[in-house]
Amino acid sequence: MRFVIIGGDAAGMSAASRARRNQKDLEIIVLEATGDVSYSACGMPYNLADPERDMDDLVVRAASVFREKQGIDLRLGHRAEVLDRQAKKVRGTTSDGSPFELGYDKLLIATGANPIIPDIPGADLPGVVALKSLEDGRRLKQLLAERNVKRAVIAGMGYIGLEMAESLNERGIPVDMVKPRAQLLPWMHEKLSSMVQEELDAHDVSLLTGQRIEGIEASGDGLRVQCTSMELDTDLVLFAIGVRPNNELAKQAGLELGPGEAIAVNPSLQTTDPDIYSVGDCADAFHVVTGKRVWIPLALRANRGGRAVADHVTGSDVALQGIAGTAIFKVFGLQVARTGLSLKEAQDAGFDPLESVVFTRSRAHRHPGASQIGVHMIGDRKTRRLLGVQILAREGIHRIDAAAVGLHAGMTVEEFHECDLAYAPPFGPTWDPLHIAAQQVMKQF
Amino acid sequence: MRFVIIGGDAAGMSAASRARRNQKDLEIIVLEATGDVSYSACGMPYNLADPERDMDDLVVRAASVFREKQGIDLRLGHRAEVLDRQAKKVRGTTSDGSPFELGYDKLLIATGANPIIPDIPGADLPGVVALKSLEDGRRLKQLLAERNVKRAVIAGMGYIGLEMAESLNERGIPVDMVKPRAQLLPWMHEKLSSMVQEELDAHDVSLLTGQRIEGIEASGDGLRVQCTSMELDTDLVLFAIGVRPNNELAKQAGLELGPGEAIAVNPSLQTTDPDIYSVGDCADAFHVVTGKRVWIPLALRANRGGRAVADHVTGSDVALQGIAGTAIFKVFGLQVARTGLSLKEAQDAGFDPLESVVFTRSRAHRHPGASQIGVHMIGDRKTRRLLGVQILAREGIHRIDAAAVGLHAGMTVEEFHECDLAYAPPFGPTWDPLHIAAQQVMKQF
Repeated sequence: MRFVIIGGDAAGMSAASRARRNQKDLEIIVLEATGDVSYSACGMPYNLADPERDMDDLVVRAASVFREKQGIDLRLGHRAEVLDRQAKKVRGTTSDGSPFELGYDKLLIATGANPIIPDIPGADLPGVVALKSLEDGRRLKQLLAERNVKRAVIAGMGYIGLEMAESLNERGIPVDMVKPRAQLLPWMHEKLSSMVQEELDAHDVSLLTGQRIEGIEASGDGLRVQCTSMELDTDLVLFAIGVRPNNELAKQAGLELGPGEAIAVNPSLQTTDPDIYSVGDCADAFHVVTGKRVWIPLALRANRGGRAVADHVTGSDVALQGIAGTAIFKVFGLQVARTGLSLKEAQDAGFDPLESVVFTRSRAHRHPGASQIGVHMIGDRKTRRLLGVQILAREGIHRIDAAAVGLHAGMTVEEFHECDLAYAPPFGPTWDPLHIAAQQVMKQF
Repeated sequence: MRFVIIGGDAAGMSAASRARRNQKDLEIIVLEATGDVSYSACGMPYNLADPERDMDDLVVRAASVFREKQGIDLRLGHRAEVLDRQAKKVRGTTSDGSPFELGYDKLLIATGANPIIPDIPGADLPGVVALKSLEDGRRLKQLLAERNVKRAVIAGMGYIGLEMAESLNERGIPVDMVKPRAQLLPWMHEKLSSMVQEELDAHDVSLLTGQRIEGIEASGDGLRVQCTSMELDTDLVLFAIGVRPNNELAKQAGLELGPGEAIAVNPSLQTTDPDIYSVGDCADAFHVVTGKRVWIPLALRANRGGRAVADHVTGSDVALQGIAGTAIFKVFGLQVARTGLSLKEAQDAGFDPLESVVFTRSRAHRHPGASQIGVHMIGDRKTRRLLGVQILAREGIHRIDAAAVGLHAGMTVEEFHECDLAYAPPFGPTWDPLHIAAQQVMKQF
C-alpha cells in the first residue's frame, strides 16, 4: 500500500514517522513544496530575537534521518497542484520545473495555512514580510542582519504579532503595532486585556488601534506605511493579521470545506473522500465543548492528528475526541493562556454563559515574590458546564491545563471546583485562582 | 441554633465564616486552645527563612475581625477536654485554669494534628522543637534570633523537613537531615527522588539515612544528638517526622476512627454522630481514585471541608467528592508535585499498576532557558485508569493540576492523553511532558 503525504511539516512528518513505526512495509512518500521538513515553526519568533542563533537550529529532524533511518521517501521541492480523486493520483511540479505524477492508495493533505497578506500597493516590496515557512524565517533573519532596521511595523495582534513585537524589542527595535479593531484581543475579557496593554506599554510597544494598512511605498532606505489615518516611517513591515487554510487541492477536488474554509474532516481525520485524510492547520476539528466543527490551527493538534491519521491508515480504528482550543503565549513577562470558549463564542454556540473575572496573588498570603493572576471563567447557566477559562499571570500559567482537562471531561463548574488542585505557599493561595473564579461563577447559578 | 467549633485554624475558621455568611442569626462559638486563629501555618518555614519578617504577618484575619465584623463568638485560650454526646456538651479549661461547659446543637471538631515527638531522652531540652502552631513558629524564630545557631539537625524528610532545610540554609545554617529509612521520599519513583537528592547535595544539605535519633543531651552551649550509629553536635533539633491526628475528644466520645486514627467522616463531613462534624488535619476523607478512606492532612481540604460543614449545618445537602491527595512543595530550585496514588499505594489498593518515568525539557526544542522535567505516571492495566502522577521541574509544575482534574474525572490514561494541553515554545514541548508520560504507559496496555 502506498501512503502519500502532501506537506512535510508537523502534521505530515508526524504521520510519516508514525506510519513507519506502525508498519514496516508501507510505502510512504512525502511531497514537500519547500526544501524544509520537520522544524519548529512556532519557535521562529524566539529564534529571531537572538542574532547569534542559526534559524536552522529549529530543524527537529533532518531530511536524511527520515530517508535513511525511517525509509520514508521524502521528496523536497515537490509542489502538488492537482488532485485526481477518480484516478487516485496527485500531479504537480518540482522546484526545477519538471512535472510529476504520483498514484496513492491513501492520501494525507497536510498543507498547513498561509499568512494573509492584504492586496494593497507595496505588499511585495522588500522589507515587507510574513512569517510562515522556515524560508520566511531565514529571509527575515537575513534582513535583520543586513538592513539597518531601526523601527518596525507589525500588522495584527495575534500570537505571532505579539511574539514578534517582543522578539524585535529584544533586538532593540522599537515596534508600532497596528490593527483595525479597537479591542486589543477581542476574545479576552477587557479586564485581562488591559493587563496585556500595560505590559506592552511598559516595554514601549506602541499600539495603534483603528488603523488598517492601506498601502506601503519605498521611502529613502526605508518604507512609508499609509494607515487609515496616519503615516508611519519604518524599515520593516510584518503582516501577522492571520492565516488561511491552504485548501486549494481539496477545494479543486471537490472535498467538503468547514469553518474558515478549512478542510472538513471526521473524528478519524478523513475528508469526504475516505481515502483522503487531512490534518494540521489546513483542516478543521470538533470542539469538545460545542461538539461543532471549528478551525483553530494549533501545533499540538497537527502532531496529534498526524499520528492519528497514521494509525487509521495502518488499520487502527482511531477517532479523536476533539480540541479545547487551548493556547498559551507570552507577552514579555506576562503569560497568557486560554482554553475553551470565550464569552462571545459561548453565546454564539447557544449557551447562556455566566462569567467571572478574579484577580488573586500567585503565592500565598504574604509570601514574598507574589504577582497578580487574573482568571476569567465562563460557565453555562442552564447546564452549569464549564465552558472556558482565560488566565494571565507571571507564574503558574500551566494551571490552564487543569481547565482544559475539565473541558474534555465535560465537567460542571461545581465538579471542577471540587478538584483537589495543588497548594503550597510558594505556588498559590490555598484556594487556587481557578477555584476562586469557579466560586464566583457558582454564586450566579 | 448553636454551632460550636473546636479549633480556630483553617478548617474551623472557614466553617465559622461560611456559616455566618449562610445564616445571619446562627449562634457560632469557636473554642481555640491557643491564642491564635486563622494563620497560614504552611507559611511558617518560609517566614522563618527571613529574620526581618514578623511571624505574626502570617495571620490572615485577626480575631477582632471575626468577632466584630462577623459576629462570631471566638473564645481564645479555651481547651476542650471532654465531649459529652448524650448531654450535647463540651467541657474544658481556659488558659487561666477555669473550667467551662458549653452546650451545642451542632459541633465541629477541627482540632488538627500534632507533630510526633519521639519519647526519647532529651526531647524536652531547650533547642529541641517541632513546628505546628504559630506559637511554635514564634518560639523557633526567637530561638534563631537569640541563640547562636551554627548548625541544625532535622529529623524527617517530609514537606516540612525539606522546607525547613531550605529555610535554615537561607539563613546560612548548615543542616543535617536524619531519617531511619534508606529511601529519600519513599512514595517517589527513585529516578525522580535522585533529582531531589542532587538538589539537596547542591545546597550542602547533608542527608543521613538509616539514622534514628535515640537521645539528645545538652553539650556545652549546644546539643549532642545520639543517632543509630553516629553522634551529631548541633544547636537545634527540629522534629518533622510526621503528625498524628488530634483525635482525643472523638476517641473518648466513642466516635469511629479511620485510617491513621483520624476521625472518620462521611462525604458530608459527619462523624458517626450526625450532629458532630470533623474536618481538617484530624479527619479522614475519601480518595477519588480508590474510593476508600484515607488520611492525607492538607490545607485545601481543611478549607474546603470547613465550608462544606458550614453549608451542611445551615441546611444544604453537601457531599464532597473526595481528595486526590494533590501536594506540591519546593526543594530549593526544584518544584515537586504529586497527585493520586504512588505505585505502592496503587498495588495496595488492588490495582495492577503500570508506570512510566520520562524526562523531557521544560521548553521546546532549542528554546533557551529550558530545564529538565521528570514525570512519573501510573495507570491501571485492567481498567486503563489514570491512577497517579508525580512531577519534578524547575518551571511549569502547575501541570500537576491537569492530572488532578483527570483523576477527579476518572479518566483513563488514553482519555487524559487526548486532552488539549497548552503548548508554545517557552512553555514546553509540543507534546506535553504529561502526554509523553501517558504515551509510555499506553504502550504497555
